[in-house]
Amino acid sequence: MKGPLKSTLEEMKGIPQPPMVNPYGNSSAKIAPRLTAEEYVEGIFAGERPIVSRAITLIESSLSSDRNTAGKIVKACRAKTAGMNTMRIGITGVPGAGKSTFIESFGKLAIKAGHKLAVLTVDPSSEISGGSILGDKTRMETLANEEKAFIRPSPSAGSLGGVARKTRETIAICEAAGFDTVFIETVGVGQSETAVHSMSDFFLLLLLSGAGDELQGIKRGIIEMADLITVNKADGSNTERAECSKNLYDGALHLFPPTRSGWKPSCVTSSALTGAGLEDIWKMILNYFSLVMGNGYYLRNRREQDRYWMHESINESLKSSFYGNPEIAAELPEIEKEVLNGNKDSFEAAEELLTAYNKKL
Amino acid sequence: MKGPLKSTLEEMKGIPQPPMVNPYGNSSAKIAPRLTAEEYVEGIFAGERPIVSRAITLIESSLSSDRNTAGKIVKACRAKTAGMNTMRIGITGVPGAGKSTFIESFGKLAIKAGHKLAVLTVDPSSEISGGSILGDKTRMETLANEEKAFIRPSPSAGSLGGVARKTRETIAICEAAGFDTVFIETVGVGQSETAVHSMSDFFLLLLLSGAGDELQGIKRGIIEMADLITVNKADGSNTERAECSKNLYDGALHLFPPTRSGWKPSCVTSSALTGAGLEDIWKMILNYFSLVMGNGYYLRNRREQDRYWMHESINESLKSSFYGNPEIAAELPEIEKEVLNGNKDSFEAAEELLTAYNKKL
Repeated sequence: MKGPLKSTLEEMKGIPQPPMVNPYGNSSAKIAPRLTAEEYVEGIFAGERPIVSRAITLIESSLSSDRNTAGKIVKACRAKTAGMNTMRIGITGVPGAGKSTFIESFGKLAIKAGHKLAVLTVDPSSEISGGSILGDKTRMETLANEEKAFIRPSPSAGSLGGVARKTRETIAICEAAGFDTVFIETVGVGQSETAVHSMSDFFLLLLLSGAGDELQGIKRGIIEMADLITVNKADGSNTERAECSKNLYDGALHLFPPTRSGWKPSCVTSSALTGAGLEDIWKMILNYFSLVMGNGYYLRNRREQDRYWMHESINESLKSSFYGNPEIAAELPEIEKEVLNGNKDSFEAAEELLTAYNKKL
Repeated sequence: MKGPLKSTLEEMKGIPQPPMVNPYGNSSAKIAPRLTAEEYVEGIFAGERPIVSRAITLIESSLSSDRNTAGKIVKACRAKTAGMNTMRIGITGVPGAGKSTFIESFGKLAIKAGHKLAVLTVDPSSEISGGSILGDKTRMETLANEEKAFIRPSPSAGSLGGVARKTRETIAICEAAGFDTVFIETVGVGQSETAVHSMSDFFLLLLLSGAGDELQGIKRGIIEMADLITVNKADGSNTERAECSKNLYDGALHLFPPTRSGWKPSCVTSSALTGAGLEDIWKMILNYFSLVMGNGYYLRNRREQDRYWMHESINESLKSSFYGNPEIAAELPEIEKEVLNGNKDSFEAAEELLTAYNKKL
């Protein structure tokens, strides 16, 4: 066995783990002997896959000693990659659109083109659905065996903010380890798409032919986030229908307000099975990066994303202090009920809760 | 002179006003003799236009004695209208789409159909742009003279949250005064549309033929909020182009994920000049209300909006305490600069600020 599969298994093998503890989660169990921050950084910069993998595990830990080391590692990684041009590509799609197969085929294309690829998954619901860790391993088997690919499943569930932070730190580590291309896949619906969009340079949406019903699973607004839509599974008897859907979406995209990047989103077709369309998508993505690196949007957008996440983290933290306050937690259900019954005005209810909160501070 | 124009002028005439003070704003000057909460409520319930107008002025005041009275009035108004079926219709459009003329013609149609209509405007930028108060008065002259119409310009600028609160309270007063139909117009871009969408039952978007460039002014995502799009100014030599745009949008709307209401958004054409299409739009709106009142979405959505505004107010308040803290205000620019330069991680920056904030509490 080669590649990331091996390293992760190595890491998990032979190390005592308490039963029923999620190795990626908020467990206080040490799951691998820790190195110093310097040792991690050295290993990451040298592109040592097992060290990269262990550094990510450290990031996913909530032990404060780990957080401390993780902070130093991330800082060093960011410093190394500052000014480097990397490609962060968000990928989402309706259920059944064939995201894993697409990423596998598309990822191999990126590697063939000379890139080193990291595939990350944001799935805040994974603790509930359970299988995503194993799922990711098995479903991208051939990509996982590529020397130049690094596949990392979703960290365990937690707040979307927590998952987002871990993912952004993981991106920094992967880039410092030489992975110049990062796919950030989202398998969730709704909020996780917005989070991934806010940490990607380019956002790719996979749809199926037969518009309408199939969109049930995705939130309104996602289509307008896409830089490129591909109608996937455009093969066999489905080819014609896919082409038809593609034309519809392509027409629709021209009706949207212009993007801030200056890029004109469009729609294409693809088949991860036959490989049709994949080269074109890759070319379009390269065109996109050439455009936004040229017009300054690439850097501006990344900086805006940094600022966004700073304020988003502050906001998340303020909210969790408020809603985590025992008094608020006790009063909220009753007050919320009164608002829902129309007995209390929403602003009045807000003021009541805020007064109670401020008194306790 | 009859109608709202008269009442507002009456209210403003002969009452001492300090110079340079915005009568709708956060002025501490009393601009009309105050009544008791009971007197206001009585006048509102009797549909007395001058009292309605003065109650709204009270709502827009930030004097704490006024806020106190306003709170009582709003509570009484909400109690009266609980369970009543009213129609709150948000209206927005690209610059130049002819919103005012549309609202004037369309409003007269609503009145002809037997409804009492209040037209409110949400324009958080009005303090900057200046003219919206006078603008609203003059641009809807014939509607303003209708006995069954009540036009109220935007409250003065302030935070979007503040404007939203005032607008929602104004809606309660208008409904209690017997205005069963409320148009909530937004003239801003971006955030104010989202706010209006979150206080409307139905959201109407006015576009112009010649898609693409004309959308420059609107934010991505607005199209997916619309329950109905009308390509306005479909008259004279523009008729054919408008029809063509309509078909394009109509096709595009079918490609969007389904709405939670069960309603299928579509696109039509209209001309406020010739009146073409207005009756159809009115019928579609009635169909919408019939659908959502039947399937329970109407009430469910209003309750969700109440809850949304409760949490939104809490969130706004937490943020303004944080960002209004002198220490944070002093530290933020430097830290934000470091984030933008890539010298500080966004999450690290957030933590630094939060630590400083929590120490001071």
